[in-house]
Amino acid sequence: MKNLVYLQSGGPTAVINSSLYGAIKEAKAQGIPHIYGSRNGVEGLLNDDLFDINKEDPEQIELLLQTPGAILGSTRYKLPSDSDDERYSKIVETIETNDIGLVLVNGGNDSMDTCAKLSRLFAKKGLDVKVIGVPKTVDNDLSATDHCIGYGSAAKYVINTVKSVCVDAACYKKGKVFVVEIMGRNAGWLTASVDLLPAPYRPDLIYLPEDAFDLESFYSEVKAIHEKKGHCVVAISEGIIFPRDTSAARVDAFGHIQLGGAADDLTRLVEKNLGLPTRSIELSLPQRADPILISKVDRDEAIECGRLAVKAGLSGQTGCMVALHRVSSSPYKVEYELKPVEGIANVEKKIPSDFLDSVYHLTPAFREYLYPLIQGEVDIKFEDGIYAVAKFRYNR
Amino acid sequence: MKNLVYLQSGGPTAVINSSLYGAIKEAKAQGIPHIYGSRNGVEGLLNDDLFDINKEDPEQIELLLQTPGAILGSTRYKLPSDSDDERYSKIVETIETNDIGLVLVNGGNDSMDTCAKLSRLFAKKGLDVKVIGVPKTVDNDLSATDHCIGYGSAAKYVINTVKSVCVDAACYKKGKVFVVEIMGRNAGWLTASVDLLPAPYRPDLIYLPEDAFDLESFYSEVKAIHEKKGHCVVAISEGIIFPRDTSAARVDAFGHIQLGGAADDLTRLVEKNLGLPTRSIELSLPQRADPILISKVDRDEAIECGRLAVKAGLSGQTGCMVALHRVSSSPYKVEYELKPVEGIANVEKKIPSDFLDSVYHLTPAFREYLYPLIQGEVDIKFEDGIYAVAKFRYNR
Repeated sequence: MKNLVYLQSGGPTAVINSSLYGAIKEAKAQGIPHIYGSRNGVEGLLNDDLFDINKEDPEQIELLLQTPGAILGSTRYKLPSDSDDERYSKIVETIETNDIGLVLVNGGNDSMDTCAKLSRLFAKKGLDVKVIGVPKTVDNDLSATDHCIGYGSAAKYVINTVKSVCVDAACYKKGKVFVVEIMGRNAGWLTASVDLLPAPYRPDLIYLPEDAFDLESFYSEVKAIHEKKGHCVVAISEGIIFPRDTSAARVDAFGHIQLGGAADDLTRLVEKNLGLPTRSIELSLPQRADPILISKVDRDEAIECGRLAVKAGLSGQTGCMVALHRVSSSPYKVEYELKPVEGIANVEKKIPSDFLDSVYHLTPAFREYLYPLIQGEVDIKFEDGIYAVAKFRYNR
Repeated sequence: MKNLVYLQSGGPTAVINSSLYGAIKEAKAQGIPHIYGSRNGVEGLLNDDLFDINKEDPEQIELLLQTPGAILGSTRYKLPSDSDDERYSKIVETIETNDIGLVLVNGGNDSMDTCAKLSRLFAKKGLDVKVIGVPKTVDNDLSATDHCIGYGSAAKYVINTVKSVCVDAACYKKGKVFVVEIMGRNAGWLTASVDLLPAPYRPDLIYLPEDAFDLESFYSEVKAIHEKKGHCVVAISEGIIFPRDTSAARVDAFGHIQLGGAADDLTRLVEKNLGLPTRSIELSLPQRADPILISKVDRDEAIECGRLAVKAGLSGQTGCMVALHRVSSSPYKVEYELKPVEGIANVEKKIPSDFLDSVYHLTPAFREYLYPLIQGEVDIKFEDGIYAVAKFRYNR
């Protein structure tokens, strides 16, 4: 039996290492001799930078279940389209040197592109190397799967954190306008999740990139709510589009204007146009990384996707991604299936129209969809008041 | 026996309602007939806006232990210095109408000022009304007490959240410069807390308002660390002072320039001067409000302070604040004592020099001080994946 190499890729999630955990458990059960981690995703294949996960301490493997970040290192490296590019020869060399028979790629849209390119490469070269994708992204924008691994935990973090903001915001008679910025450039899945919060501690307004954003109606909504309640909480996706003051925009190292900070810009506009006190709150990295509020459903599915990816490869499948098919929401039941990765990367799944009924109201169908994904709390191991993370020998 | 009225004041903490819980339990045990909540702190006394907490559901009282925000409503109202001001007559009227014999004020420096003014008022009017302060502030800047109630839980949130940022930041070979902004205008207690994180997941640099901040040395430190590690995580207090670009500064409703957003400004400077990619992360409101990472030590002390405030008032004390005196750090042992509130409000406790040995290194003495305050996790009750909060009839 040949060896396995595991790649992590793109932005990490709170459960990214839980899929690795599932793959390790299944690979050991199946008797795969060496389970290699590829350091920084495909970069490890390009530089023959692999390490043997079997040599790591079993206790550390268990801690993968609560370790955020990508324990193997991540990458945003994009493989060239030209399959004759010399970089592909390096990858083949690494594969052959280490006697690899199965490559698992854990990531989002870009990683499924890597998956497709690698499976094409091995087919072209006549190598018996299988490639299976393991879905992961807090953005929930991968097509071909009911939902993405990592979304449930990020949504649970966002929902609970925004609840705290709403509770705190309600304390003063004369409060502020709070604008909370949540991840999602083109798809508003994470922002929409706050719709699951019951009144009175839910945002008054929710704005998604799927809808056109109109500043004037935003002002009048905010003004009316602030007058009535004494404060107003607005949840926005980072990707909503409105006229920005580019004079204060930041220019990056390459001279490109970076618009970011939508909440900050919006609060400035509210101050200027409505004369109300404001506070912008960007949930930022912790919403994808924080493990304290991991959803048990999400973690169980993360583990299962890792296991099934190993099984699929060993059964001869390649060029596929493990996908989730929802059988029912209540009771919640999913089935796992394999979908060809070819083309998956080109489709960004936005919130469908039957989940939306106006600019800031999501439908009961959306809440039914989201509800099961945030269920269940997990036990977190703390050491002296601080949550523990796995430590691998290779990177210490 | 006369009645009790409880006031919450200033910025809420994750355990502010735990002190109320302690006071309710003790007041019931002592047979105080009515325990009133004053809506929005001293505003409730000015407007005779009290409600009887005894009428609330016992199950909701238990949920106070995990309810952030100020369940009674908070205020930043500052009482006038002139004790002949007519507002004081209104307060006396409310006190007499409701047969109040004990006023508890839960808050930070400004609230202790309220405490002092009220006790002077009652003395002057010859009223037998006791006033006791219950300390609360995530800023940990109240003098006369070893530490403040609320600081431990906020520090625990900050430490664990910054750990997630550090873990996530380490994923890429070529990563960013992350600047994490933590609460603390003039005292860096919360920012300093991240010093408790063990390597490798701790910020590379820590900047506190207690130290002068030098931009040039900041640049050279950041550059060297980023070159060596491929990324750099910097923790700063919101109050550090450096030359800001006021052209992009925001002007509030009163025409005052608001500087805020120190991390955002610093990252712009790093991009401009070092040409490195950056990300600013402001921990914002959740660091004081989020109940998921409440420190058990902090919560137990919050409850105890509430209980002791009732006892102190009933035993005839007035014009005092419940304070903590540390007997030892290891094993951790505190004693409670009463300190006169007069003058407390004028002193803002900064990090003492024996806790600091350079711009970004705290001493072992500081870590010994902080360590016990973040210990112990508490069970949080969730309903359908979302943490539960107390609902009081009066404000639903």
